[in-house]
Amino acid sequence: MAEPATTPAAPPVDFRTDPSRYRHWKLTIEGRVATLGMDVREDGGLRPGYDLKLNSYDLGVDVELADAVQRLRFEHPEVGAVIVTSLKERVFCAGANIRMLSQSGHGWKVNFCKFTNETRNAIEEAGALSGQRYLAAVNGPCAGGGYELALATDWIVMADDGNTSVSLPEVPLLAVLPGTGGLTRLVDKRHVRRDRADVFCTLEEGIKGRRAVEWGLVDAIVPRSRLADAARERAAHLAEQSDRPASARGIALTPVDRTIDGDRIAYRHVTCVVDRGRGVAEIVVAGPEASPPADVGGLHALGAAFWPLALARELDDLILHLRCNEEGIGLWAFRTTGRADLVTAHDRLLAEHSGDWLAREIRLLWRRVLKRLDVSSRSVFALMEPGSCFAGSLFELALAADRSYMLDGTRQGDPAPAATVRLGEPSFGWFPMVNGLTRLESRFLGEPHRVDELKRRIGEDLDARAAADAGLVTFTPDDIDWEDEVRIAIEERAAFSPDALTGMEASLRFAGPETVESKIFARLSAWQNWIFQRPNAVGERGALRVYGTGQRPEFDRRRA
Amino acid sequence: MAEPATTPAAPPVDFRTDPSRYRHWKLTIEGRVATLGMDVREDGGLRPGYDLKLNSYDLGVDVELADAVQRLRFEHPEVGAVIVTSLKERVFCAGANIRMLSQSGHGWKVNFCKFTNETRNAIEEAGALSGQRYLAAVNGPCAGGGYELALATDWIVMADDGNTSVSLPEVPLLAVLPGTGGLTRLVDKRHVRRDRADVFCTLEEGIKGRRAVEWGLVDAIVPRSRLADAARERAAHLAEQSDRPASARGIALTPVDRTIDGDRIAYRHVTCVVDRGRGVAEIVVAGPEASPPADVGGLHALGAAFWPLALARELDDLILHLRCNEEGIGLWAFRTTGRADLVTAHDRLLAEHSGDWLAREIRLLWRRVLKRLDVSSRSVFALMEPGSCFAGSLFELALAADRSYMLDGTRQGDPAPAATVRLGEPSFGWFPMVNGLTRLESRFLGEPHRVDELKRRIGEDLDARAAADAGLVTFTPDDIDWEDEVRIAIEERAAFSPDALTGMEASLRFAGPETVESKIFARLSAWQNWIFQRPNAVGERGALRVYGTGQRPEFDRRRA
Repeated sequence: MAEPATTPAAPPVDFRTDPSRYRHWKLTIEGRVATLGMDVREDGGLRPGYDLKLNSYDLGVDVELADAVQRLRFEHPEVGAVIVTSLKERVFCAGANIRMLSQSGHGWKVNFCKFTNETRNAIEEAGALSGQRYLAAVNGPCAGGGYELALATDWIVMADDGNTSVSLPEVPLLAVLPGTGGLTRLVDKRHVRRDRADVFCTLEEGIKGRRAVEWGLVDAIVPRSRLADAARERAAHLAEQSDRPASARGIALTPVDRTIDGDRIAYRHVTCVVDRGRGVAEIVVAGPEASPPADVGGLHALGAAFWPLALARELDDLILHLRCNEEGIGLWAFRTTGRADLVTAHDRLLAEHSGDWLAREIRLLWRRVLKRLDVSSRSVFALMEPGSCFAGSLFELALAADRSYMLDGTRQGDPAPAATVRLGEPSFGWFPMVNGLTRLESRFLGEPHRVDELKRRIGEDLDARAAADAGLVTFTPDDIDWEDEVRIAIEERAAFSPDALTGMEASLRFAGPETVESKIFARLSAWQNWIFQRPNAVGERGALRVYGTGQRPEFDRRRA
Repeated sequence: MAEPATTPAAPPVDFRTDPSRYRHWKLTIEGRVATLGMDVREDGGLRPGYDLKLNSYDLGVDVELADAVQRLRFEHPEVGAVIVTSLKERVFCAGANIRMLSQSGHGWKVNFCKFTNETRNAIEEAGALSGQRYLAAVNGPCAGGGYELALATDWIVMADDGNTSVSLPEVPLLAVLPGTGGLTRLVDKRHVRRDRADVFCTLEEGIKGRRAVEWGLVDAIVPRSRLADAARERAAHLAEQSDRPASARGIALTPVDRTIDGDRIAYRHVTCVVDRGRGVAEIVVAGPEASPPADVGGLHALGAAFWPLALARELDDLILHLRCNEEGIGLWAFRTTGRADLVTAHDRLLAEHSGDWLAREIRLLWRRVLKRLDVSSRSVFALMEPGSCFAGSLFELALAADRSYMLDGTRQGDPAPAATVRLGEPSFGWFPMVNGLTRLESRFLGEPHRVDELKRRIGEDLDARAAADAGLVTFTPDDIDWEDEVRIAIEERAAFSPDALTGMEASLRFAGPETVESKIFARLSAWQNWIFQRPNAVGERGALRVYGTGQRPEFDRRRA
């Protein structure tokens, strides 16, 4: 099978944007209700070679959506409900652009789907944990990824006219899955009966009107003329129930400052050196340089400059950048520097003001960033050396790692103190993974008592021996062995098949229960990735390749 | 990518066997303890082209294992514990044969893994629900699928010598996953810490001795000279705790009688016509012809001829046959005939004697057969026509279907009475799916009260209207529409991509919670199937292809 270049030759994707630069979305706010209007520019594709007709989308469209979803959280504490709708006259959204998909390589497709899934998960999280409820006003055909976007909201109202329907035509039309959560949310979120889901997902033309309500595909239908009002009324009602402060002032998410100089990527608190020869991104995360403000007012005054928030945004950008633009770098090695007491002081401020909307948003952003790390198809190592600062919330990076190396003792000739790690409150509930468990709970699934014991050791500085005894680190070589042991581990990792590592890590990282989110990244995405490799979808005569050419796809009829 | 023929040209695989024909296993029984000794014949491969060295296995080896596991349940009620060990001097088991894998096509690999997974699940079920506990006595290197077999047992004891270790070398050696449950059971069953699991799964040489116990990879180590005794002692202890009747007499699992005549496959209670043009297997399941025996003694006297047992074995064989030998048939359409009262009378006998070991085994076999149906990569339709018999345990076939069509009323000129369906006790707990829920619970995940309501209607004959109102069937066309509606549905199904259907069905069938079993068939198998398509594993220079040739694999280093 010919594998197209993963990305058409083009500059790296930049995930940083802001509303002044949106080309595809219009964000309007009236009182406590925001409206995200989708109005995709046909000629506004991120890459050449396809037109974004009928509000179909590509990664660029979703980067803007993700930005809007993020800004609504931080910049608009007053907004308690968000209406997602189309600004086009005759269509809601036609889903992911098919020509874009058909001309993309495997890696690009997989990465695109992962990002769009994360954005939809963030929409659901806003409703569940942040008092910002999303609803969809479906004012025209709503197909594939368009319906999957609606599925991520908490309430779907659809125009009851001859033109408007919801559909998941991927299977009959394109020989791929509704992989942006569609299949999972149908049966696991909306509890659509499996036989009806089977029918719906094989019905190219979709379902409209009363049957869509009866089958649970939408929550309500109203005449076209009533649609906007119905959505506004519902949004106003949801906003009233929100615990977000109606009169608070948001903080500005100022641009994330980043310089890329050759293989060095530098932010304010994060640096990354891309070592192409060894296939490693060497990432250093710096703790805060000063004490946190004395009170929550100071936190608000700092806004985007407040260390935990600034760092989370930088890490998020780095993860997205490396995932999309540095596919050949299979291992991310995390180091930290800084002072543990300053990290824990910042954590404490967030803990003390957990009722403050901004403190809550910062914790939730960390939660999303760490989840993004967990579901990244990269190996993650944590390297704890003298002078490191794996404390409090920063220790969560070590818990997110596939393995960790902690240097036992000091280095000869190096005045830096021996590495210690310090558990903080954040590891005990602030940042559940997609499986709903904390990283400590996942780690000690068979020994839950260990988590309780460790909770009593919050704030203790554990040296390598103590950390190993506590089960918190994997290996603790001393100065003599460190260089070789870490070097060999990195070299070995680089020698393994990237695909096998991806499948292995995705299986080992998420022990325990499953949720809609974890099912999307496991069952659904894994199947989709498989299908994205199958000639029936992507071969010369595969459905995705011949779509729109007038040719009929040819299928190998054998079931695997 | 060149796709090898799915099966080397060869006769169809026959899944029926018995101990007199075993070539690879020796089953011995001493009192309440059985021993399954693995002694794979090097020249005994199911297909030419590979030698089964070092107790490596292919599908043929596992067919015998599955048969032994089944017979131990029915033919040996006295056996409370089963020791799995190797009869070779210097190796326990080297796992799935690599040359076999490398020369197999995609479909063959996937089907092979599915079957081996089902066998290992049956081993676990024996311990959990049937009082027959498995343990592994690891008396030599135990690698890959060998260790996955051990992982499926309830207790692993390993020789503490220089030669014996456990390992999962798939990732470093072959660029594929330990996909027969290995990754899942490590973290979800044995609760091996994820960082240790990461290390272990990238360590070609595996782990031996004390560390294997410390990491939770095995339960005990003993000197080589003590191994057999240690296993026997533990087995005797486990057998003592078993609720299986020490002095009962088993029943003989007489050969399943089957004739294949062209495209017609006939058993005593099941017939199947393979319609290659339309890609459908038309399956008809017949209810019992007579009343069940009056008491449990009569049930034992009938043995393998007792209708529920005979039918379950026939269905199981048919599913395996179609899966392995009829890959091009993507849709299985189930019809039934017979008398509802006779089915429910048989169900009642099983219910009344739920404490009887044989009645329990029959129910558990049905449970396994229905699970096999659920995880089959085929579309399943249930077609309920006048004269049909979807009653009691047979109604579970309709609940396992992706969708169902029930003819509303009679057929013009046909004296057969209008179809009705009748719920029985079996649908309310006898046959949980791999997700741990009954099919009714999965179906009504969002409306659990419906399940309670339906329970009060056990025994009622529901016509098409009533069945539809109760949410039990999908469509109810009348005589005028039936032919066209069913024909079109079947034609449409045949026109869709087989791969997309497989991914879709696997996603829609298992709403709700996940278990080790469901995770193996979802997350793990889906990732493995993806990897089985990736050039890094199966391409010309992929690891699986070049293994043993002295060439080094070449990897595309991009992470997807």
